[in-house]
Amino acid sequence: MMKTIPHRLYLTEDQIPRQYYNLRSAMPELPDPMLNPGTLQPLKEEELYPIFCDELAHQEMDGATEYVDIPEPIREVYKMYRPSPLVRAYNLEKALGTPAKIYYKFEGNNTSGSHKLNSAVAQAYYAKAQGITRLTTETGAGQWGTALSEACSYFGLDLDVFMVKCSYEQKPFRKDVMRVFNASVTPSPSMKTRAGQKILAENPDTTGSLGCAISEAVESAVTGQNSRYVLGSVLNQVLLHQSIIGLECETAMNELGEYPDIVVGCAGGGSNLGGLIAPFMRDKLQGKKPGTRFIAVEPASCPSFTRGRYAYDFCDTGKVTPMARMYTLGCGFIPSANHAGGLRYHGMSPILSKLYHDGYMEAVSYKQTEVFEAAVKFAKLETILPAPESAHAIKGAIDEALKCRETGEAKTILFGLTGTGYFDMTAYASYLDGRMDDHIPTDEELQRGFDSLPDIPQNK
Amino acid sequence: MMKTIPHRLYLTEDQIPRQYYNLRSAMPELPDPMLNPGTLQPLKEEELYPIFCDELAHQEMDGATEYVDIPEPIREVYKMYRPSPLVRAYNLEKALGTPAKIYYKFEGNNTSGSHKLNSAVAQAYYAKAQGITRLTTETGAGQWGTALSEACSYFGLDLDVFMVKCSYEQKPFRKDVMRVFNASVTPSPSMKTRAGQKILAENPDTTGSLGCAISEAVESAVTGQNSRYVLGSVLNQVLLHQSIIGLECETAMNELGEYPDIVVGCAGGGSNLGGLIAPFMRDKLQGKKPGTRFIAVEPASCPSFTRGRYAYDFCDTGKVTPMARMYTLGCGFIPSANHAGGLRYHGMSPILSKLYHDGYMEAVSYKQTEVFEAAVKFAKLETILPAPESAHAIKGAIDEALKCRETGEAKTILFGLTGTGYFDMTAYASYLDGRMDDHIPTDEELQRGFDSLPDIPQNK
Repeated sequence: MMKTIPHRLYLTEDQIPRQYYNLRSAMPELPDPMLNPGTLQPLKEEELYPIFCDELAHQEMDGATEYVDIPEPIREVYKMYRPSPLVRAYNLEKALGTPAKIYYKFEGNNTSGSHKLNSAVAQAYYAKAQGITRLTTETGAGQWGTALSEACSYFGLDLDVFMVKCSYEQKPFRKDVMRVFNASVTPSPSMKTRAGQKILAENPDTTGSLGCAISEAVESAVTGQNSRYVLGSVLNQVLLHQSIIGLECETAMNELGEYPDIVVGCAGGGSNLGGLIAPFMRDKLQGKKPGTRFIAVEPASCPSFTRGRYAYDFCDTGKVTPMARMYTLGCGFIPSANHAGGLRYHGMSPILSKLYHDGYMEAVSYKQTEVFEAAVKFAKLETILPAPESAHAIKGAIDEALKCRETGEAKTILFGLTGTGYFDMTAYASYLDGRMDDHIPTDEELQRGFDSLPDIPQNK
Repeated sequence: MMKTIPHRLYLTEDQIPRQYYNLRSAMPELPDPMLNPGTLQPLKEEELYPIFCDELAHQEMDGATEYVDIPEPIREVYKMYRPSPLVRAYNLEKALGTPAKIYYKFEGNNTSGSHKLNSAVAQAYYAKAQGITRLTTETGAGQWGTALSEACSYFGLDLDVFMVKCSYEQKPFRKDVMRVFNASVTPSPSMKTRAGQKILAENPDTTGSLGCAISEAVESAVTGQNSRYVLGSVLNQVLLHQSIIGLECETAMNELGEYPDIVVGCAGGGSNLGGLIAPFMRDKLQGKKPGTRFIAVEPASCPSFTRGRYAYDFCDTGKVTPMARMYTLGCGFIPSANHAGGLRYHGMSPILSKLYHDGYMEAVSYKQTEVFEAAVKFAKLETILPAPESAHAIKGAIDEALKCRETGEAKTILFGLTGTGYFDMTAYASYLDGRMDDHIPTDEELQRGFDSLPDIPQNK
């Protein structure tokens, strides 16, 4: 008799992982090193200390250590909202008429409404442990800013958030949630930083981007008292912390006697996808599960993987950060005002970029109208209102399940449902009213982005 | 050695109750019967059929049956978001320095963001099973409307929601969530019904109330094609469905070897409180646990229990419903624009009213500023942003825990955390900006409400 698989599997508290998993340790080739933009030499750990607290700088550079112990104060916070459920999407499967089994890991059951809290807690803790008193950051959709506000409030740190202007305006209540947790929130670009002033001088009507907001937050940290900058995605350290998502999935699927054939995640900077795939990609890289497919889903309006270049680029628009080799649209690329603010980023995690470049991952892109169509379908069937970012993964998973309907294959699909869309109702209303803009960048617009790539020997 | 109690206890899917518990069956005296307002005679079940579908009319009138089987299609939906977690508020306990153990049952982990989905699913199912094609309802805070939208979308029913105007305006995005689930939403009072027209003629500037919205929804149901009216609180049937909250609490606390000394819940119409207390009140009424205390927490701006009268009254403002004997401020009472829209109701569940009248329950009221103070404290400590309604229970539980600090007693406190506050950021902003209005009704204002009570022999 087949084992009955529940709709939702919650692991117990003592099954929360005790170690993060460092996917770099399994990679045949490491991502190329970050470069100091002044010297064009590989960056040394110490050079990151003014920006990141020491432990996080170390985690950023350490590609070798396989497992990193999770400090107990971090696990104490995790216990307040983890383990997150692994859900079997029975209703979605039935509605699609697919033989595929669809699972999703739901990370929206906490106040921040997303997976972002996993890394926020870690970064706030390490900063606090070093005696840092103030953090700065950027936020796109607002989920990272909310998560970090919670974490900083918990550990007693001050926080300044630079929020991408179009999100700030689309989601007026996001800033109030951050204010509940004592954070100060500024729409970006702003006049508070030289980077913001410069961007506004060049493009006064810009609705901002994650790249702009990062420039401002970094500047605000390195010029501030006892401050450090923290980032919610892209970085190696963030993927390390987010491995907790994948590790919990692995344990839960083990309990069910399952293993994914296809792992699907939305990709903006790569934090969720990199965490979700960690143990499964390890198995693939180590030859244990060579056939597993990994699919990054991105918006057609900001197609880093599918139309970008694999090149050294700045992580920000103002060109104040180190350079990383990644799939990028160019740090000068300003995406159209897509509602998935968390995916409006010119670059991509160097780890995921390397895996994609080396053929271990696939990528697809969708226009936002078809993404919201999937979101509404999912909400009605599965009683969770997804964030627009998360809905990209839903759309990707649905399309793979529909392929299974064609071929008759009962594949096991796992996707990451990163968060809830309670603060995205402007976007939903725009979809429901048929007012959603599906602009995708023209080749000329992409070229203008590529023209902003650093003109350095490494990019020849 | 003491058993380690986890932060969150999730029961398994097969521990979802298979039967609702009917608290009336344990009451020494039943609540007084509803009256037909025309004849002033006790209402017969058949007289409810034009308003409610037959099974719900039966549940409304049936005080004797102890347990009611939950139909499998309802349990199938419950499996998508239940069992809900029982959480130990370790951080809150520590911050309060109390020897008390504080538990809360968190019902916010579903799209509707509240416990309301428990009854919405049941009511939509029974209507569908009878061949009804359209439902009408009212919503205050918007949680009930959202929950019912989800349930109607799931079972394929049309839905018209009359939303209290002040909530409609305070929470512009609530209607968009309901639209995702295909519901039609109208701010109330409206010109769509004769009841709404009459209320607007008498008081053109009214911000509405649950009582007004009920009048409109009932009229819209009884004058519509193959339609029935459903209500998210107050009614006996709703408390029956919500007993699932208490039953899950009982099972979870059993597993932990715990039993509550004090049970605390917010009370608007009584749906959450009535469900939460069900098995524990049964134990008290049956003499097994005579010492358990039950505390209803209500807003000082709408103090049905603490300043109301125990009298026969209409459930709505337009006087179209049957009369129920309950604690009431008078169906003509219009509460000030308190941010806890879900608690702005003139009356109270007849079951809870009877229990309170007979001395089995206590009640307290708080001003909204002190409630939001508790909400913000809780959000920072427990990483859940509570709905304003739920925050009343938090405030009540905190005050009981502080009394334990005074006396040194390690009491076990259980409260109901009914939902999340993602759509209440206007209220939070008003609190954070120090702009919150703490108006409580004057004796004259209360008297005007009492003057609207039916002038019938039963009220002499």
